[in-house]
Amino acid sequence: MNYRFAVLLAASLVTLTAATGVTPAKPAAATLLPNGPEPAYTADGKLELPGNYREWTFLSSGLDMSYSEKADMQDHSMFDNIFVDPVSYREYLETGTWRNKTQLVMEMRGAAEKGSINQHGRFQTGDTMGIEVHVKDTGRFPGGWGFFAFRGADPAQQIPTSAGCYSCHQQHGAVDTTFVQFYPTLLKIAKEKKTASPNYRP
Amino acid sequence: MNYRFAVLLAASLVTLTAATGVTPAKPAAATLLPNGPEPAYTADGKLELPGNYREWTFLSSGLDMSYSEKADMQDHSMFDNIFVDPVSYREYLETGTWRNKTQLVMEMRGAAEKGSINQHGRFQTGDTMGIEVHVKDTGRFPGGWGFFAFRGADPAQQIPTSAGCYSCHQQHGAVDTTFVQFYPTLLKIAKEKKTASPNYRP
Repeated sequence: MNYRFAVLLAASLVTLTAATGVTPAKPAAATLLPNGPEPAYTADGKLELPGNYREWTFLSSGLDMSYSEKADMQDHSMFDNIFVDPVSYREYLETGTWRNKTQLVMEMRGAAEKGSINQHGRFQTGDTMGIEVHVKDTGRFPGGWGFFAFRGADPAQQIPTSAGCYSCHQQHGAVDTTFVQFYPTLLKIAKEKKTASPNYRP
Repeated sequence: MNYRFAVLLAASLVTLTAATGVTPAKPAAATLLPNGPEPAYTADGKLELPGNYREWTFLSSGLDMSYSEKADMQDHSMFDNIFVDPVSYREYLETGTWRNKTQLVMEMRGAAEKGSINQHGRFQTGDTMGIEVHVKDTGRFPGGWGFFAFRGADPAQQIPTSAGCYSCHQQHGAVDTTFVQFYPTLLKIAKEKKTASPNYRP
């Protein structure tokens, strides 16, 4: 539906340009629209990396987050940045939950302390350590969601559903197996819309 | 130009809907377009807070960053999230520098360690500690840029140009007095386009 709308919009832009003689400064409609594509798979079921996720809607970032009693990653420090496609984001604002075909992207990046004029704390570096995508596709994944771990731009195979990420998200996710409890602007919406899991109901 | 384009696009959508009978799922064109408004000022020169900056393009985040030898904020921990309006972002990708009317937003948020299943590291909380906006408006500000500190949704007065932020950004900003050195995906573009300040030239 969104893709169809984008195509229609692109077509209308062509018409617009023809009718008015105005050529938009940035002519490609696809680059002007927020990108909210459906997930794309290869013939053998791998997920394509959404190439423009850095222009999707930012939800939050964390530093060296760990769910274990014992801290992981003693020897290096990493940020994670979470993005969601803008169409799913806008629908979440209205409904408090995720539409089918939602894609949440977690980008992991190096964290540095000293650099330029920075003396303390941490900033993000140019080193991308990995990208994971959490996809809602109810016709494809038992449980509704699939996890994919990318180690570069190549399509990624689904992480087997026996992996811990599935059961952990199932048990602890505040909304529809996702960790909305760590997305500061979204949790209150789930509470208002009564879409949060029992642990997060007022 | 971009605003005019948005209006034209909105008008074309009305035509599109009338011509095809297709009503887009999210009908308001304004909510589908990336928001790249020009800065808006009150009659007495205060800057209006861009209300939708959380849907702008995310550049990076940092934790407890400090430029002093002695660490600030011993008693509390804070993330900063940096956003830029999407039109300026796209123009930066092409030119390696900031168009006139660029708005960069720094949102400061509480950082917590223990919460939900998180045991170590830091995640962002619902507490917004403040918002600062760095605006390029060459017809208005000597030096081209103005800083504004918001303490809520009310319009903010410009920080006087005698404040340290101006001279520090002037001396240390990698691109046009902005700290692109801390925006991991943008620094390499400035290097390629040769728009970086001398310290950041290869």
